[in-house]
Amino acid sequence: MKILDLPTLCTLIRETGLGPFLDLASAALQRDLRRWKQFRLTPRHATHYPHGVIELMPCADARYYACKYVNGHPGNSRHGRLTVVACGLLADVASGYPLMIAEMTLLTAIRTAVASAVAASYLCRPQARRLAVIGTGAQAEFQVRALTRNFDIESVAFYDPDADAMQKFAVNLERTGDERLRPADSVREAAFDADLVVTATADKARAKVLDASMIRPGTHIQAIGGDCPGKTEIDPELLANCRIVVELLEQTRVEGEIQNLPDRHVHAELWELVSGLKGGRASEQEITLFDAVGCALEDYSILRLVYELAERGQAGDEVELLPEPKDPKNLFALLGGA
Amino acid sequence: MKILDLPTLCTLIRETGLGPFLDLASAALQRDLRRWKQFRLTPRHATHYPHGVIELMPCADARYYACKYVNGHPGNSRHGRLTVVACGLLADVASGYPLMIAEMTLLTAIRTAVASAVAASYLCRPQARRLAVIGTGAQAEFQVRALTRNFDIESVAFYDPDADAMQKFAVNLERTGDERLRPADSVREAAFDADLVVTATADKARAKVLDASMIRPGTHIQAIGGDCPGKTEIDPELLANCRIVVELLEQTRVEGEIQNLPDRHVHAELWELVSGLKGGRASEQEITLFDAVGCALEDYSILRLVYELAERGQAGDEVELLPEPKDPKNLFALLGGA
Repeated sequence: MKILDLPTLCTLIRETGLGPFLDLASAALQRDLRRWKQFRLTPRHATHYPHGVIELMPCADARYYACKYVNGHPGNSRHGRLTVVACGLLADVASGYPLMIAEMTLLTAIRTAVASAVAASYLCRPQARRLAVIGTGAQAEFQVRALTRNFDIESVAFYDPDADAMQKFAVNLERTGDERLRPADSVREAAFDADLVVTATADKARAKVLDASMIRPGTHIQAIGGDCPGKTEIDPELLANCRIVVELLEQTRVEGEIQNLPDRHVHAELWELVSGLKGGRASEQEITLFDAVGCALEDYSILRLVYELAERGQAGDEVELLPEPKDPKNLFALLGGA
Repeated sequence: MKILDLPTLCTLIRETGLGPFLDLASAALQRDLRRWKQFRLTPRHATHYPHGVIELMPCADARYYACKYVNGHPGNSRHGRLTVVACGLLADVASGYPLMIAEMTLLTAIRTAVASAVAASYLCRPQARRLAVIGTGAQAEFQVRALTRNFDIESVAFYDPDADAMQKFAVNLERTGDERLRPADSVREAAFDADLVVTATADKARAKVLDASMIRPGTHIQAIGGDCPGKTEIDPELLANCRIVVELLEQTRVEGEIQNLPDRHVHAELWELVSGLKGGRASEQEITLFDAVGCALEDYSILRLVYELAERGQAGDEVELLPEPKDPKNLFALLGGA
């Protein structure tokens, strides 16, 4: 069985190039979304604690079974640790044998950004040039890099109450792109003239980061940070006036921005747009919103991609996690007469 | 994060000694069963295919979160592969960070045997001397070794339609114990004078391996092999006349021998016996049955045990599966300007 650790994954992405890697991930995700009905999808299995949540996200088709372990602990950053870490397992459905265990903290950030960019290609006006990013934590740069694959973004306005996080965001983007960066002193200042607004805040609380007075007609909103019960970012009045697209309604209804909104406000699941079953943006003036909570299919898709890339490039270490006895009924002999 | 692979685990068990290791696992399990209400337990998450099943078994308390990946593919042995393989993850609840990924194929066999032996200590007459084992596949020797920690077993009768599996079983037990081995030509011949009968067959089908005519009054039956919907081993008439103990009723009702029996036939969950809330065997004459399907608490318990043993003995390899950036909000920097 293969172990794909973080240094190996980073090397694999650097060798591919982040831009091309994002394109490969986007192509893989769209391919998988088009065959949505072939997957076995259930809402994730969540174990809630007062200080955080631990989740399992399984997704399988007839060939691969993927499962991601992921947490969400908003207090971790006070101890110098990440709010979200993740690892994943990919198994062969024919035999049930695991094929790979991989780091997925970085992959989760990437697949979240890729899914949002796919949604934006249906929901955002193609002539969008001004991006605003609200919340410049661990997820923010990935969103920008994925969106700039699909849109000619000229300026990125950004706001975070944490000045260090704003500084970090600016340094990372200056190194990797040529958008004009516009630090703002408030959400309103960042969002007021944007064509595309990303909210990616991490408070585990009902919040109203964005309201109707801050948003122009025709804007596309990507609400990334409202992703568990009781945790939202968008003012309900603004929300009710948006054309809303979700990933998996059954799950988003519990975890997403729409958790207090009747289902009739939801226009579509993302796979329906990608499959052509439903249209995306219907007018220049409407406000559209992608209510991203993350879906196990996105994990399946990127885990399969890196597995296939790693196999081709012979990347990753083999570990002896599974027994391979000569006689499959002789498990006891592994102990060698203990 | 620690990786505990199969060779490392085997070394750890050999150094401890299989007998003492079984005692440690039994003590740990009983400790955990006594605090049953402190755990977050849900029926496992199963993905069924025509040829097998893939399951996730999470279980957590306030300190550790455990999750096992396990499959069940009866056709695997035709290709020289194991029917069941498993691996597990143990995480720290305070931070949500995974602490260890471990092999669990061997650990699953061990914890299954340990749970059955704990059940037997409440359900089997203490003077039991004659054991019968029906089905001598991968699980069989573990059951015997765990039971011989608690009972003075003098003879082991055994039957399997596969002569090679019978031979393997005999060789393994001759090497590790001094019970008299009595190969039998049929289930009936193996079971007819037994005080304790273990059924551990692997067919994914409704079967009647054992019926009332084969069993004497006072026998204790451990039904190990009926563990998913449609897969049973015990004749319903015999079953309805047993004092039945299960692990987690909510799960066993779907997967176990009792899947076609009203709940009123179930005497107790195992934790209720261990906690003293309910009694075990009530008379010398009654037939008792432990309907073992496996429960995530058993995985939690043994995974925690081997984690703590491995920590103490500095066993296992460290892998860099989780990011440890200096700034927890600077995930993007891991890519080094990709």
